[in-house]
Amino acid sequence: MTTDHERFLQAAIEEAEKGYAAGGVPIGSVLVHDGKIIGRGHNQRQQKGSTVLHGEMDALENAGRLPASVYRESVLYTTLSPCPMCSGAIQLYGIPHVVVGENHTFMGAEDHLRGLGVKVDVVDNARCRELMATFIREQPDVWNEDIGE
Amino acid sequence: MTTDHERFLQAAIEEAEKGYAAGGVPIGSVLVHDGKIIGRGHNQRQQKGSTVLHGEMDALENAGRLPASVYRESVLYTTLSPCPMCSGAIQLYGIPHVVVGENHTFMGAEDHLRGLGVKVDVVDNARCRELMATFIREQPDVWNEDIGE
Repeated sequence: MTTDHERFLQAAIEEAEKGYAAGGVPIGSVLVHDGKIIGRGHNQRQQKGSTVLHGEMDALENAGRLPASVYRESVLYTTLSPCPMCSGAIQLYGIPHVVVGENHTFMGAEDHLRGLGVKVDVVDNARCRELMATFIREQPDVWNEDIGE
Repeated sequence: MTTDHERFLQAAIEEAEKGYAAGGVPIGSVLVHDGKIIGRGHNQRQQKGSTVLHGEMDALENAGRLPASVYRESVLYTTLSPCPMCSGAIQLYGIPHVVVGENHTFMGAEDHLRGLGVKVDVVDNARCRELMATFIREQPDVWNEDIGE
């Protein structure tokens, strides 16, 4: 991991912490283009009653409308392995590179993304794991709901 | 198609018409559980500047938070073949049955869904095709943006 990579993952973790502080599922994400964060967000199930704003989706939503060319040069950082919905959004917009904080808590559609040619780097960050372990201990029902279980 | 199926697809078309009347991408969707519509919505790219609220996603968002058991007994109606993002949401929540208005304008991830055991019925409805043909003629750039092209 380069320093830039660490910095952007750290920004995603800050989003996850923000979500946790608000009683939410602690998953955060940032979209990076040309070395700059152009969208950031975190899971909004508890805060907005949202079923579609996972961390990655919230970052994409907050990035706003973009030309296809921007997505195709962007990197999406997320604290947790992206679920099928978020992976589908990555596929839809042709985002070529995803950096994942951890995939111990939940294994998303990483193989599916790799099969499509998306570069998926898994960092295995301790803070990402710890945030999820704490939340799942405290609110297991909310976590299960968030992954459709 | 049973009469119920026609009625629910008609509700999705009404959503698409609503979106078109507001200058938006004319794709609508309804989520049906136990013979009742529990969520309805339409593409919100133009209206809300949303990059994640495709018609199906808007219907899921408007349905609100639901137990997994409800999704697993629901049918999602959509006027257009579901893109990878919307198909990913269908996969995440384990929705077992999707009814698609048409797939001439855009072929979504139907095969992927079928491979996961989701029942996908394609109706080939003329009004669904016509709405999309009109919109794409009028605003081709917005349509391309909506599918990441």
